[in-house]
Order: sequence, then C-alpha cells, then structure tokens
Amino acid sequence: MGNFEEHPLYKMMHPKSIAFWGASSSPMRMGTIQLMQLLSMGFEGAVYPMHPREETVAGLKAYKNAKDLPAPADLAVLVLPTDVVPQILEECGKAGIDRVIIVSAGFGEIGPEGKVMQQRLVEIADQYNIQFLGPNCIGVVNPYVKLNTTFFPYQATAGFIGMASQSGSFITQLFVHLEKFGLGFSQGFSVGNEAMTDISDCLEYLGECPNTKVIGLYIEAIRDGRRFFEIAKKVAKKKPIVAFYVGGSGAGGRAALSHTGALAGPDLLYSGVFKQCGIIRAYSIEELIDFCFVLGTQPLANGNKIAVLTHSGGPGAAAADAAERNGMVLSSFGDNTLEKLKKFVPHTASVGNPVDLTFSRNPNDYTETLPKILLEDDNVDGMFMYVLLPAHRILETIRQTVPDEEQVEQLARAYVETQCSEIAGLTTIYAKPVVGGSFCPRSELFVQVLQDKGFPVLPSPERAVKAMGALMVYSRMRKALLTED
Amino acid sequence: MGNFEEHPLYKMMHPKSIAFWGASSSPMRMGTIQLMQLLSMGFEGAVYPMHPREETVAGLKAYKNAKDLPAPADLAVLVLPTDVVPQILEECGKAGIDRVIIVSAGFGEIGPEGKVMQQRLVEIADQYNIQFLGPNCIGVVNPYVKLNTTFFPYQATAGFIGMASQSGSFITQLFVHLEKFGLGFSQGFSVGNEAMTDISDCLEYLGECPNTKVIGLYIEAIRDGRRFFEIAKKVAKKKPIVAFYVGGSGAGGRAALSHTGALAGPDLLYSGVFKQCGIIRAYSIEELIDFCFVLGTQPLANGNKIAVLTHSGGPGAAAADAAERNGMVLSSFGDNTLEKLKKFVPHTASVGNPVDLTFSRNPNDYTETLPKILLEDDNVDGMFMYVLLPAHRILETIRQTVPDEEQVEQLARAYVETQCSEIAGLTTIYAKPVVGGSFCPRSELFVQVLQDKGFPVLPSPERAVKAMGALMVYSRMRKALLTED
Repeated sequence: MGNFEEHPLYKMMHPKSIAFWGASSSPMRMGTIQLMQLLSMGFEGAVYPMHPREETVAGLKAYKNAKDLPAPADLAVLVLPTDVVPQILEECGKAGIDRVIIVSAGFGEIGPEGKVMQQRLVEIADQYNIQFLGPNCIGVVNPYVKLNTTFFPYQATAGFIGMASQSGSFITQLFVHLEKFGLGFSQGFSVGNEAMTDISDCLEYLGECPNTKVIGLYIEAIRDGRRFFEIAKKVAKKKPIVAFYVGGSGAGGRAALSHTGALAGPDLLYSGVFKQCGIIRAYSIEELIDFCFVLGTQPLANGNKIAVLTHSGGPGAAAADAAERNGMVLSSFGDNTLEKLKKFVPHTASVGNPVDLTFSRNPNDYTETLPKILLEDDNVDGMFMYVLLPAHRILETIRQTVPDEEQVEQLARAYVETQCSEIAGLTTIYAKPVVGGSFCPRSELFVQVLQDKGFPVLPSPERAVKAMGALMVYSRMRKALLTED
Repeated sequence: MGNFEEHPLYKMMHPKSIAFWGASSSPMRMGTIQLMQLLSMGFEGAVYPMHPREETVAGLKAYKNAKDLPAPADLAVLVLPTDVVPQILEECGKAGIDRVIIVSAGFGEIGPEGKVMQQRLVEIADQYNIQFLGPNCIGVVNPYVKLNTTFFPYQATAGFIGMASQSGSFITQLFVHLEKFGLGFSQGFSVGNEAMTDISDCLEYLGECPNTKVIGLYIEAIRDGRRFFEIAKKVAKKKPIVAFYVGGSGAGGRAALSHTGALAGPDLLYSGVFKQCGIIRAYSIEELIDFCFVLGTQPLANGNKIAVLTHSGGPGAAAADAAERNGMVLSSFGDNTLEKLKKFVPHTASVGNPVDLTFSRNPNDYTETLPKILLEDDNVDGMFMYVLLPAHRILETIRQTVPDEEQVEQLARAYVETQCSEIAGLTTIYAKPVVGGSFCPRSELFVQVLQDKGFPVLPSPERAVKAMGALMVYSRMRKALLTED
C-alpha cells in the first residue's frame, strides 16, 4: 500500500477538494456538463467552481482566482479555451495546486504550433512541481471516492478493472458497456496527449492499486517504448494486463494520428512487445472487457486443456470449435471421470467432451454434480459451462406445487441463488478457472446473480471460451516472466 | 408465391390443426412442456392432445387414436419414447396425417441399431406419403401463425430471419439472443437427423418465403453436398444466406458427430463450397445474427469503400481498424465532400476518414447533415455510424427550457424519434448500406427506435463494421452468380 499512496497519481485520484475551471451558468458548455457529472456522482469533497465573473455556478459559490480559495485544492480541472490554459496552470502553481487535469484540446494534436503551447505547459508544471494529466483528455473516474470528471454519468459499480486510455471519450463509452455485465472500473484514466503523464505512469499506478485486479489499456501509440516495456513487465508479474491496440492497421493508425497526434507502429511489432512483457492483446473493445472479466476474477490455469459442459448441442459444438481455434485442446477425460459421467448422460447425448446433458435430466445435476466431476479430473485445466436457468421455467415448475404466487417468486429466487452459488463457488474449491456463456441478458436473474458473485458470464459460448484462452495464455506468460527472475 | 405454398414444408409450417403426442398431466415431461409453449404462444388452430389413457391434457380433450380425430390434423408432433414412434407414424399415415415432426431421439445418432429404426420411419413415410421432420429435432417456429413446437417460449417478434439448424436447442437458445436486438425469426427449423427433410429442403423453402429477407444456417455437416450446392446457389441469387459451420475444427467436428451423427468435413472444403455458392460464412453465433441483421435490412453495396462517422475517437479508430482487417478500405473523400465537411469539423478533430465530430458541436449536424454529405460522395459505398443519443443528456437539455416533467419526456421521445428517422431513412435515400454501432443496450430508447425501424445497431463498432464487410462480400458474390447465368 505504501507505494500506492506515494505514487504521484494517487492524490489526483483521491482529491479531498477540486477547483473546477470552465463551468458556467450556460448548461450546454462542456465544462458545465462535466461539473454536473461530478456533482451528480455525489463527490464528497469540496468543489470550487472557478469563474472570472459569476458569483455562483451550479448553486456553488464561485471563485475568481486560485489564490482566493480557502486552501489549495488537491486537484484542478481545466475545461478552458486553449489560449488561457497556460495562464491558469500558472495560477494553480502559484496557489499551491499541484495536481491538474487539462481537458482543453488544441495542443500537440493539431501540429507544430500546438506542440509549442504544449511544451509551455510542461515548463510551467516543472516550475511549480505540478503533475498534470492531458491536455486533450476527458479526465478520470474513481467510483470508490465518487470522482467522475468526464461528461458522462458513471452508473456502473465500483469494480476491479483499472483502465488507462489514449482515447478520452472511449472510457465514457465503456461506462454503459460495463453496466451490461455488472462490471465497473476500479479507476480509469483518459491520458490525452500525454504531455506529462503517460499511459505507462497510469499502468505503474494501477499496478499498485489494491482495488484493481486487472488492467485494461486502450492504445493508439506508445511514445516511450522502453519505459512502457519495463513497467508492463513488472506489473504483468503481479496482475494481468489486457491491451487493445488500434494503431496497427493502416486505417487505425491514421485515425489515431489525427486523434491524439501519436504515431502508431506496425501491428506485428506491437504484438511482439506485448507478448514479451506479458500483455494479452485484445482485438476489439468487446474482447478487451471480456478478457478483463475473466482475467480479473479467475485463478491462473495450469495448462490449456478445457472441459466443455453444455445442455444444448449447438452451443457446445460452438464452444468446442472456438476452443480449438483459440489454442486450447479439449480435455480427454480419465476413465474414472467417464465412469462417473455415464450415469448422468443418456445414450442420446455425448459422454465425450463436450459433455452434453440434455434438457430432460434433473437440472440440479447440471449445476451441482457434473461440474465437480469434470473439475476433479487432472486432465481438466479449466471449464466452460453453458448456463441457462431461465426464470420462466423455474417459476412454472414451482407453481405446480405452490399456489401462492408471492411464495413462488421467493422460492424461485432462492433456487436461482443456490444454484448460482454452486457454480460461482467452483473456482474456489478447485482453484481452476471456470467461465460461463449464455445468450440471456443481465435482466435474467441467474445472469445477474452469477455476475455479481464474480462469475464471468459472457454473451456467447465463443466469447467465453476465447476469454478462457486469454487467461491460459496469460498463465503461461506469467510463469515465464517469473522464471526469468 | 405459387412455389411457396406448394412446397411440401408449407403445410407443416402453416397447419390449421395439430395432433400432439407425448404431452400428459405430468408437467415435467418434455412433451408437456412443448405443448404448453404451443398453447401459450396462442396458436389459433385446433390442438388435439393424443393420449392412450387420459381424457384431457392441458385442459383440452385428448384423443386415443389419430383416426378418432374430427378430421385429419394438418400436422402431427411426436414427443414419444423411441420404440413407439414407428407405430404412431403409421397410425398418422392411416388417418391421413401427412406432415409430422418427430422430436423423439434415439435413432441414427446412436449408431447402427438406431439407423435401422430410422430407415423404418422413412419407409413408413414413403408408404403413406408423409413428409416428416427429424427425428431428434426440436421442431419448428413460425411466429406469423403463432406456431412454436419447441420447449422454449418464443417472445421475439415475427421477423425476417429464416433459420434452419442442425442443432435443435440451438434455435431456442437464439430466441433470447434475437430479443436483445428486436429481431425475430420469419420461420425456424430444427432439422435433427434429417432422415427425410434436410437443411437443403428448408433452404429451398425459405428461399421462397416472402417474410424471409435473409437465411441463417447452423451447420454441423452437409449430408448431400451436391444438392445443397445447387439449391444454395439458386437461393443466393435472390436473398443472402449466412452459414455458421462448427464441424470444421477437429473438436467441433467430434462434437457434431456425437450430437446428430453427422460426419463433418474439412474446414477449408466447406469454406470453398460456401464461397462458390454465394454463402457468407459466420464464425460465431453472434456473427451469424449480426450478419443476418445487416444483410436482411440493408441494400447491396457497389464496392468496399466505407465511410466512418463518429463523435468519439476511440470507437472511430476501432471501426477503421476493423474495416481494414475485414477487407474494406476507408473512403478517400472527394474535394467537394472535404469542403462541405470543413465547417462542421473543428480543428481539434479529424477531417479525414473517420470523420470525428466531437461532442461540442450541434448534435443535429451529426444525425441530419453529416451522413448525407458522406453518402452523397461517390467514393463511399457504405457507411458506419457510431450512434449515441443518450436519454439522460436529451432530458437534461430539454429541462433547461421546459419546466413540466411530463412534457419533457414527451419532447425527448419526439426528439429521439425524429433523429432516428433521419438515420434510418438514409438507406432509402441513397440506396447504400448504413450500419450503426453503440455500446448502449436496447433498453436505451434510441437503440430500440432505430432497431425497430430496421436500422441495424450492433453492440460495438467492430461488429457493425464486420457485418458491413459481410454485406460487401455478398454483394460481390451475388453479382458474380448473376453474371454466370
């Protein structure tokens, strides 16, 4: 914990007071929107709107100059026209504010002129010992202290995914995506032009953060490759890192260049670097979060042999297909396992792998007995499980014997809770990774209960199996990294 | 339409009366569950439960023998123990029932003994001129006539995707997946062991179905390659076919074998066949439906040049990256287009492609003006659009000027409707395909409105762009097929 609280970014992410420039009585201004999000999130520290003329902003007393504040704010947020940024940064420095988020754009990303302006910011920061984030960023989110400086409401949970992104609105776009899985950021950074604080700094910091179980990176280009390499390698020994790199294709690279002014490198080079420092590469935004879900909740795997458990042939075959396409092999079960399975699997279904238990059997076998038989087998390094505990079926079944509808619903909920506990508990008993797949959305009770118990249920068999593959690769890479020492 | 109604499968999918074997007073039997789904779907024809002893089943008068029915049923559904199936099939034949769905398993898929039994079914069918589906299938769904013989409730809409699947429960698993997009099947088949009716028959039939705009296939193995090839080629000239083939990897193939007893072929062979007859191959269940969504709603493309419109840099770069990885090129805009774009795109964002309109501009430009500028350019064959019209922002904005909360909500809804109409109408004006991507789920109003207007909004930029790629490939293949003639 010592390293964590001493890290320069700690104070920026845990401010007790914030001075906010750029909000006004005009509701459609970006600065106003960002201030409103900060307030509506329920930030508990002091918030000081800064404005040259207005007496109050968003119902709060406004201040004209940083030196007028009751005490130096822990953090300043600047959503100002480009031209005035240097002057306000200097004002912060003079008033003893040493953490600043510069949202304003119009610097390095627009060309030589902007680069000069950006360099001026760094000089001011150096002079006053300021650590700033940006410019051209959207700020940060730390749900554990109800901090959200972005323009988008954060309604996801306080979670375990630490995120650092070279695209600003990207992290805000993920807010709604995370909600679909009951996931949340532990802390999230938009690094913008990285004039002073870069993605490597965030990575180092998130590596120390105790709430962060896995780190997600959105990368358009790495500016200081050597430093990134050293830090990533150190962090990857402790916790998994998943990187989504879009600069590798020509089109992605050009898009990145015009976006944050960063020059992207060849795809294969980045893949090579990621591999060497133990980073898992994601090829889409969905993969990035899928992988984080599994890598942040499941234990490491000892190998790449996977068991597939299903009660529907199609999803089982799709999972098997995906396993092979993603570098895993389907476990060959031991004789002991086959013997135990035989009495559960009728002649019309499979006793091989996938294990296909048709719908006609006792549903509790599927959740309570079969997973254990499979995970006990030494030939199984991890398991994929197709999950479906549809409320309509459970309700219908209970209604057969219980007349009171209220009681029916209570019993159904209790049943789902119990079955989900069985599934979510497997990982702890066997110290092997287990992933689930279901087409049901989170509005189905069992999906919500499983996800909230930290069991990854992904929206399709293929995505779940692919994420398991990522975990197996990381397990191997981490072992190699630790052996190097 | 003539061909359609004369096709042997038409009567099976549009029965006016159904004789149902295998349901009883025992609520946990598969047959009972299937009958309950049929009734709860609201099937409007006559339903005759068939039972040797019970007088009523599910509140309906039960019949002991097919010959006791008031008139021969248009369709029989058999959910019976394997042994009695031949005898009941014969009973059907004698009573003049000539369309039968055999759900019962334990035939060809279990080995030589089962194969003999299955052959017996074919002989009986031939003798009595019966067309049957199965055995070892889960039946059919035709939401247009409220027909659902499966065990799972169908709550999706009556849609435009025709589906034929070699996995039974697979189609039922898709019911919930379709709902997430507001999509639905036009008609869906589980073909099981294909003893008499195979996936090619369904493909031919769906090719004639006027409600079917696109056909999805779940394939574990094609039994009669030549016939499949001929039919697929004919159908693909009229409407798109998307096939998900899982038998190609060793693991997928073995899973398929134990599932429906079909022998899968090498991956590349299937890819080659698909290509030659104009079928788009999907590599996952999600892709299958994503591709169907776009191929079933969007016009053909004249080339592979795509415009990317975004207001968030990350998703834009991800879309550009995905475009290049999936065989598309980013359009180089004409001078005229660049000139028109200039006044909308501020200096901090891109004027190239992706077109990145930051959040700070008038939001209506994004939906009303920019898409038209892009689609008018001859260098644009199709467009991806990142869409986000978050209710919270719209509500907040309207609240600034309108005090009455009820009126605020009405105005917000009207605003979303108008903007979505603009977007969904683009395809008609320009006869070019447009796809949308958003991380927001369907519970966000704009997603629902767009999807219900037939505009494909997929859950990520990458998936939307990939589906656009599939459409562009199909457009090319179809042109080639038609040139052959």
